[in-house]
Amino acid sequence: MFLARITGSVISTQKVESMVGQKLLVVEPLRVSEKDQTELVGTGRSFIAVDTVGAGEGEVVLIVQGSSARFTPETKPLPVDCAIIGIIDSVHVKAKKIFDSKGEERS
Amino acid sequence: MFLARITGSVISTQKVESMVGQKLLVVEPLRVSEKDQTELVGTGRSFIAVDTVGAGEGEVVLIVQGSSARFTPETKPLPVDCAIIGIIDSVHVKAKKIFDSKGEERS
Amino acid sequence: MFLARITGSVISTQKVESMVGQKLLVVEPLRVSEKDQTELVGTGRSFIAVDTVGAGEGEVVLIVQGSSARFTPETKPLPVDCAIIGIIDSVHVKAKKIFDSKGEERS
Amino acid sequence: MFLARITGSVISTQKVESMVGQKLLVVEPLRVSEKDQTELVGTGRSFIAVDTVGAGEGEVVLIVQGSSARFTPETKPLPVDCAIIGIIDSVHVKAKKIFDSKGEERS
Amino acid sequence: MFLARITGSVISTQKVESMVGQKLLVVEPLRVSEKDQTELVGTGRSFIAVDTVGAGEGEVVLIVQGSSARFTPETKPLPVDCAIIGIIDSVHVKAKKIFDSKGEERS
Repeated sequence: MFLARITGSVISTQKVESMVGQKLLVVEPLRVSEKDQTELVGTGRSFIAVDTVGAGEGEVVLIVQGSSARFTPETKPLPVDCAIIGIIDSVHVKAKKIFDSKGEERS
Repeated sequence: MFLARITGSVISTQKVESMVGQKLLVVEPLRVSEKDQTELVGTGRSFIAVDTVGAGEGEVVLIVQGSSARFTPETKPLPVDCAIIGIIDSVHVKAKKIFDSKGEERS
Repeated sequence: MFLARITGSVISTQKVESMVGQKLLVVEPLRVSEKDQTELVGTGRSFIAVDTVGAGEGEVVLIVQGSSARFTPETKPLPVDCAIIGIIDSVHVKAKKIFDSKGEERS
Repeated sequence: MFLARITGSVISTQKVESMVGQKLLVVEPLRVSEKDQTELVGTGRSFIAVDTVGAGEGEVVLIVQGSSARFTPETKPLPVDCAIIGIIDSVHVKAKKIFDSKGEERS
Repeated sequence: MFLARITGSVISTQKVESMVGQKLLVVEPLRVSEKDQTELVGTGRSFIAVDTVGAGEGEVVLIVQGSSARFTPETKPLPVDCAIIGIIDSVHVKAKKIFDSKGEERS
């Protein structure tokens, strides 16, 4: 799995029937900053993920890929290889809190 | 999943029997532009995807990879790891519409 | 899936029993040239693929990866993650033929 | 599989129900140093892995990805594509011990 | 699949129970040299693979990844995504032998 920030959404009306009603979000994978490991930074890549937890734009989420993306009640029969399975509250690296969803809302 | 633009097609007469009649398209994955996130840009990579939604050259589509590419009625028994499962109408990033399939047709 | 050129072959006598008799080919993935998109160019990477269609060195083929490589009658029970499932006749990009297997034989 | 060092952890309260109670760790993949192959070095990438062996921050572990991450008693029904399946005691490359978990604790 | 050289081994005593007794080897993927395609060269990457054919350090082997790594009698129930399924005798590229396991033993 990896962490990602939701940056947007996608609308597709002409699609595989089983995908009707599914929320499709644009996510940018994040990684821990390489030098000092004190923050989450974007990777510049773009994936489209199906949402299973009611996540919204700007939030940092947990993403699962591949066949495992179908191992939730909502995604079981779907042709999806990327699903949001959790909203991140906080990330701790080397005994330091490097991300807090509440701190972000204030700034 | 990821977004891609259909740039071409492939013809193969000598192939696995189950693939006879399948439309094989050349697609270039797209990503959101890194600096300002205001457009979709090509990645320079090339994949071959099977089409399940009647997509055509020039269109921006949603691509699913891996075993999940077999989770549509058309692709279930096929040896395919990459399928087009939707045609994209629009993409919104940071509250801005960065792609609109209609805008493209006019320009 | 992706396009690749068959550049060679591999011999292994000491191997998993189910693989005895399988033809193992060296393939180099190809991509559409980035600037003008008028030719197929090598990527410099090397994969080993099992052949299911009687392909030979020098030919451009269609490759499937992952669990889907087992979705052909020949590869169903095999420990393979990369199979050749078609020989490419021609590739068209932006309304231009950028590859033709017959043109290649003449040059 | 690959080797990785556990660098941190992630807290997510709003998540897929089956994931409640699962320990989610931040891991950085390691590789053997390229020139002399005498040490393990970080790759700067970040993954989130579920723990099945009671591993802790700072430890070097063995990571399995994809559908195989669900092949442990704990992870079988989970939407996970990355699991810690062993804690590494030592790594030997070219007849030399390049990592020893005990040596690390002393330094 | 891809070719790799076995460069070392890994010891892990605290691990998933099904993995007890499995030999874990460090492998470096190889590719055909890009310019003249006359030799196998290292890629600098490091994977951990489970051995199913009795391979040893220094040997060049055939590696299968993903769910297909579980398609051998030994690995069927294991949480592994990377297995050695053959020891390479020779590699031929563009009608030239670019690797021979016997030539290596003499040098």
